[in-house]
Amino acid sequence: MKIGLLIIGSEVLDGKITDLNTKLLADFLRPYHLEINESMVARDQKASIKEALKTLFEKNDVIITTGGLGPTKDDITKETIASFLDRTIEYSEASQKVCEENYQRFGRPFPGKEHGYCYLPQNFIPLNNNTGFAPGLFTSHQDKLLFSAPGVPREFKSLLEEHLIELISSKMDKSRVMDTVIIRTRGIPEEKIFGEVVPDLWEKLEQYGEVSSLPILMGVDIGVKILAKNLDEMAAKVQAVHHIIETSALKPNVWHYGPETLEEKIVVLANQKKIKFGFAESATGGLCSHRITNISGSSQCFMGSVICYDEKIKEHILGVKAKTLEECTAVSHECAKEMAQGLRDRFSLDIAISITGFAGPGGGNDKFPVGSVCIGQSLRGKETSSQDYLFKGDRELLKQRFAQAALHALLTEVENFA
Amino acid sequence: MKIGLLIIGSEVLDGKITDLNTKLLADFLRPYHLEINESMVARDQKASIKEALKTLFEKNDVIITTGGLGPTKDDITKETIASFLDRTIEYSEASQKVCEENYQRFGRPFPGKEHGYCYLPQNFIPLNNNTGFAPGLFTSHQDKLLFSAPGVPREFKSLLEEHLIELISSKMDKSRVMDTVIIRTRGIPEEKIFGEVVPDLWEKLEQYGEVSSLPILMGVDIGVKILAKNLDEMAAKVQAVHHIIETSALKPNVWHYGPETLEEKIVVLANQKKIKFGFAESATGGLCSHRITNISGSSQCFMGSVICYDEKIKEHILGVKAKTLEECTAVSHECAKEMAQGLRDRFSLDIAISITGFAGPGGGNDKFPVGSVCIGQSLRGKETSSQDYLFKGDRELLKQRFAQAALHALLTEVENFA
Repeated sequence: MKIGLLIIGSEVLDGKITDLNTKLLADFLRPYHLEINESMVARDQKASIKEALKTLFEKNDVIITTGGLGPTKDDITKETIASFLDRTIEYSEASQKVCEENYQRFGRPFPGKEHGYCYLPQNFIPLNNNTGFAPGLFTSHQDKLLFSAPGVPREFKSLLEEHLIELISSKMDKSRVMDTVIIRTRGIPEEKIFGEVVPDLWEKLEQYGEVSSLPILMGVDIGVKILAKNLDEMAAKVQAVHHIIETSALKPNVWHYGPETLEEKIVVLANQKKIKFGFAESATGGLCSHRITNISGSSQCFMGSVICYDEKIKEHILGVKAKTLEECTAVSHECAKEMAQGLRDRFSLDIAISITGFAGPGGGNDKFPVGSVCIGQSLRGKETSSQDYLFKGDRELLKQRFAQAALHALLTEVENFA
Repeated sequence: MKIGLLIIGSEVLDGKITDLNTKLLADFLRPYHLEINESMVARDQKASIKEALKTLFEKNDVIITTGGLGPTKDDITKETIASFLDRTIEYSEASQKVCEENYQRFGRPFPGKEHGYCYLPQNFIPLNNNTGFAPGLFTSHQDKLLFSAPGVPREFKSLLEEHLIELISSKMDKSRVMDTVIIRTRGIPEEKIFGEVVPDLWEKLEQYGEVSSLPILMGVDIGVKILAKNLDEMAAKVQAVHHIIETSALKPNVWHYGPETLEEKIVVLANQKKIKFGFAESATGGLCSHRITNISGSSQCFMGSVICYDEKIKEHILGVKAKTLEECTAVSHECAKEMAQGLRDRFSLDIAISITGFAGPGGGNDKFPVGSVCIGQSLRGKETSSQDYLFKGDRELLKQRFAQAALHALLTEVENFA
């Protein structure tokens, strides 16, 4: 089954927002062994939407659209689909019922049958929307299926979860399963992995499925998309891929198998080991804490942080010595160590990680130019240490790289924590 | 001139990464009065890429591709474009020269003329890449132009900035200018703005250009895309749009005209007024500080924050009374006020904003269910206060909404600060 996605919204093409629905749909489809075949973004204009629908209908079995179902005048998806499929729009009792229940759930009176939401193209099914006002739409056309949902990611997700699989199950190929093994590495560039470290890795992995390689912040994610007749065959193939990696020279650089993020892995492991940690963040400005607190369950292991942008806060709140700041400056191993030590003492932590560096555009010196970061580590019963790194990028990218380095340092300490 | 964008990369369709290049390109084109007509995402497969190229060549004057130019086996953009345009690939001295300079800049020896980067489809121009190894590509085909760049956002951006405008200037329509007025509102839903508050707003704005409406976190961004013959006509039309809003009932809800973010506006204004601020973040977990520190110049006004996830940190670091935590609990106006007051005292700030709430999935009570947040404000010479809000969404969305509410509270205080 081929699935094509059409994102309807000039706001994406105008850069006002970044599309999040492609990732949402891909994440939703994965457990059902399904994937997106292709996607398009069209402007809120009839001609653009119709041309995109034409392209997608030619090449896919299921077409999913997001966006343009709301109440304002630039929401023209319903009318355009009707026109594209040559259907008239008519009053739908079923749609009125869905809308009435929907408005009731939000405690708002439904305006009545004059409301545009009560009108659907012929032979369309209205889909209940648990998280917003506009209902979704579903129909079949020749042997293709069309599923339309609002563009707000939370509403799109809710409509997928409530309706999609049931509606497309007739087209699902139950004779095969699909899964992707993700091998997450750190510390070696892509060219070096496949060129020097394991020159025959790609060929070896390719025996089991489609190989991909994705450089990401401080590492490379290698993917192997595996098809199998059933879950047993899948398990055997997955094991074979793991075996290739575990017996290769790449092994020391693999930090995880699977789609979980660094912060998810840290939180799960720290909670298992009952470790309490926190950050003294200067150059990352809160990003390490933000990433950790996105994870449910982080409140058990993450106690808190000090964002010490100003030197006085490094000194007065974390106890960095005035002498250290004066003689070594704030971006130094000495300062990083005192920040980590100070945070661990004051917050009563098992592990404290500190980050001090130059994210630019200003700052930097001969020893530590813009892009440099010192990452300090203070652990119960171990000597406090600090390591420096040098990265490239603009301010936002450097913050991301600094945070990634800090979280990798934390993961290593959490893994080694006895 | 119509510009079509093709993003080549299974990793986007598989949800491994979110595409950032559409926004990058839109932001880059805007000052040149240009926009993206449509975009597509194709898998790293010859057939998919060729079909997408066919679709985009049919409807656009300039086709921009990103991705698939790197050194691994799934990078097949160059070969596929060559096959699509029916060109053979041959050794290019120009490309070798670009690559050698490029590698030299990174302090790495270039492998020599055997390297794949030295081979280009016939009549392609190699484009210097300041931020990575793979050169970009440019060619013309019939009366269309094709510009290919690597998919890494930093490299894509650098190639756009260095090359694009010069290469496409022959096709640029100098007889008109385009600009979008963005009216950023807060506190009223979309339906209410156009249905109740100013029912004829859409029609009035439409006299000047294409109107759009985009609900975003706590507000609605209204856009008016204006075309004009020259900059004078543009200025007059922009002024007319401003006048419509300024004399409408929507005025009290407008917090900004323009594409600047909330955090940009705060940093600029706080620096002008020499205000020093910080956050006591519980439920937002560092997101407020992260957003502020993304902005260059934030180190002048943002002193730092305490992320006080654990109650002991609220008590021992910020000085929240044990009695308050026990009797009122951590999510309460009392606690929010003591957090803000405690931070302002300890960090010597002009303004301290505190955030305590339930981002879920656990927590919540009858008075403050999951989705509730209390935002405290402590200002020099003013009584400390706190306001509560109730939002919907999952953990990540709630964190975003809480942070948006906190930054709006901060902006208001910065604006009113004498």
